[in-house]
Amino acid sequence: MAEQHFDCIIVGGGPAGLGAALYAARDRMKTIILEKFYPGGQIITTDRIENYPGFAEISGPDLTEKMMAQAAAFGAELRTGSEVTELRRRDDGMIEVACGKDLFVSKVVILTPGSSYRHLGVPGEEEFRNAGTGVSYCGTCDAPFFKGKTVVAVGGGNTAIEDTLHLSKFAAKVIMVHRRKEFRATKVLVEELMAKVHAPDSNLSLMLDSTLTSIEGSGKVQKAVVKNVKTGQTNDVACDGVFIFVGMVPNTAFLNGFVDLTEAGFIRCEPAYLRTRVPGVFAAGDCRVGAAMQLVTAVADGVNAAMCMKHYLRDPKWWDEPLADAI
Amino acid sequence: MAEQHFDCIIVGGGPAGLGAALYAARDRMKTIILEKFYPGGQIITTDRIENYPGFAEISGPDLTEKMMAQAAAFGAELRTGSEVTELRRRDDGMIEVACGKDLFVSKVVILTPGSSYRHLGVPGEEEFRNAGTGVSYCGTCDAPFFKGKTVVAVGGGNTAIEDTLHLSKFAAKVIMVHRRKEFRATKVLVEELMAKVHAPDSNLSLMLDSTLTSIEGSGKVQKAVVKNVKTGQTNDVACDGVFIFVGMVPNTAFLNGFVDLTEAGFIRCEPAYLRTRVPGVFAAGDCRVGAAMQLVTAVADGVNAAMCMKHYLRDPKWWDEPLADAI
Repeated sequence: MAEQHFDCIIVGGGPAGLGAALYAARDRMKTIILEKFYPGGQIITTDRIENYPGFAEISGPDLTEKMMAQAAAFGAELRTGSEVTELRRRDDGMIEVACGKDLFVSKVVILTPGSSYRHLGVPGEEEFRNAGTGVSYCGTCDAPFFKGKTVVAVGGGNTAIEDTLHLSKFAAKVIMVHRRKEFRATKVLVEELMAKVHAPDSNLSLMLDSTLTSIEGSGKVQKAVVKNVKTGQTNDVACDGVFIFVGMVPNTAFLNGFVDLTEAGFIRCEPAYLRTRVPGVFAAGDCRVGAAMQLVTAVADGVNAAMCMKHYLRDPKWWDEPLADAI
Repeated sequence: MAEQHFDCIIVGGGPAGLGAALYAARDRMKTIILEKFYPGGQIITTDRIENYPGFAEISGPDLTEKMMAQAAAFGAELRTGSEVTELRRRDDGMIEVACGKDLFVSKVVILTPGSSYRHLGVPGEEEFRNAGTGVSYCGTCDAPFFKGKTVVAVGGGNTAIEDTLHLSKFAAKVIMVHRRKEFRATKVLVEELMAKVHAPDSNLSLMLDSTLTSIEGSGKVQKAVVKNVKTGQTNDVACDGVFIFVGMVPNTAFLNGFVDLTEAGFIRCEPAYLRTRVPGVFAAGDCRVGAAMQLVTAVADGVNAAMCMKHYLRDPKWWDEPLADAI
């Protein structure tokens, strides 16, 4: 494989990767972002962001485009469709990043692979796993396919509520299934949900203390089986689609053995400087241990890694130094 | 003093405080920002920000206004001209925040006092310390006062270069004095500076390996005395103004004895959850130890503190728990 050398390789083009790229590029480092699909990460499927300070409201694709253009203006290069398959640290300290037939080499790698949709693992989920046949993980992306139809939404977190509210603008009827009686989501969202549920002629209803046990149908989703965890009773819910909003898992399987991962798959690194156990390799964003899992914290994580990278490049011994009193 | 109770008190209305306020208010917490002057912190005097991801270019006041409006839209209250004089933790765990004749009380306080301009401490600096008589710490604010005049700029960091370049658009002649031969600033800025210095008919020149030893004049600045640290030789530089860009000191004197501070005055806290040694009191932004000192990292710090605050409110024992594998 022909080697391609860079000053900084960023693995993943989500918000953390784009934040890192802006700062690395502004430092005149030859910077490449290797992105498996296309940039944006989780926000690429979000149509309304109102918690990124500075924007009262913006769509995920719009914000992604702004961030990417900003980094590109300073010279950051983006390679889409580039899945990293292996990483290795050479004896000379250089990091090799294998990506199909290409081998990228750099002194510094910032890992920003982000997280992906968690699956429920119930019968029927894989069989119908695309919006065309009835199972989706993204309300924002797929809601329009269910205009005038009946859908079941599963989950209780922030994204679950946001996407369910979005769904209710399209579907004729939305039934939200949540395994607990209370919602763990931000109060402002829970209030918005409850207001919608209790509105006159609401098309949104709740099944609390309940879990989805299977998804059934002939060729496409026709019903969801929902079990009340308190009574043990099951109910068939006739529906045209099932949206599963039960969280994210870190996209870190390809890193196993290279950096240390937690049991849940998050990259182990120190919170201050984001150093992993491999000198020259930083982790930033939702892929790392202790991530706050917010858009702006992911962006700032990338920026922080790009700032810390300069300490390492000036003096590799910095890698083993403890937290300074002030940078 | 009459007590005023809040769910969350934020001390300082800079980017960190505004980030914290947005998240606290979105969680329907009764939130107040106590700000000594007016909101914005350091960026209030910045006319061009191009490293906040999402905005290719925005002024500090504009970004401040957007962030404040965004937090206010969810109910966050801002009190300007409110200098906090003392903090105390009661035996019942409530935090008292004294502010002139007012006493604010809350279970949670997020400290975001930011940093201020560092002074050189040379003769003449205090005497002429306002733009009207010739000494300034803010190129963006005061450059227009020196249109067609000669000014000396002291410093070598990012802000020093940014503000010096800005000055050179107004002043007839700018002499930049830097104590080292090399600049520690971001390369992209150093390159912009050098391009400007080497441009034909440039109005910008450098005095490297040099320090300012005094500022002199009769009623107003008339000359700066500059010493070459290698040769020991001093030179009188005739000028109408001196801009001092030598960094920031944390605004934490009022916190001494309440939370732990480093020798340089930064608030000691753990980097992951931003907990200080006082349960219920978080620190975020440029005031804290290990801060990356960037705009977006300060904002994210505030957001992180507001996220972590929820753990403490749910269970005060969380304060002593170690870093979790994943939040």
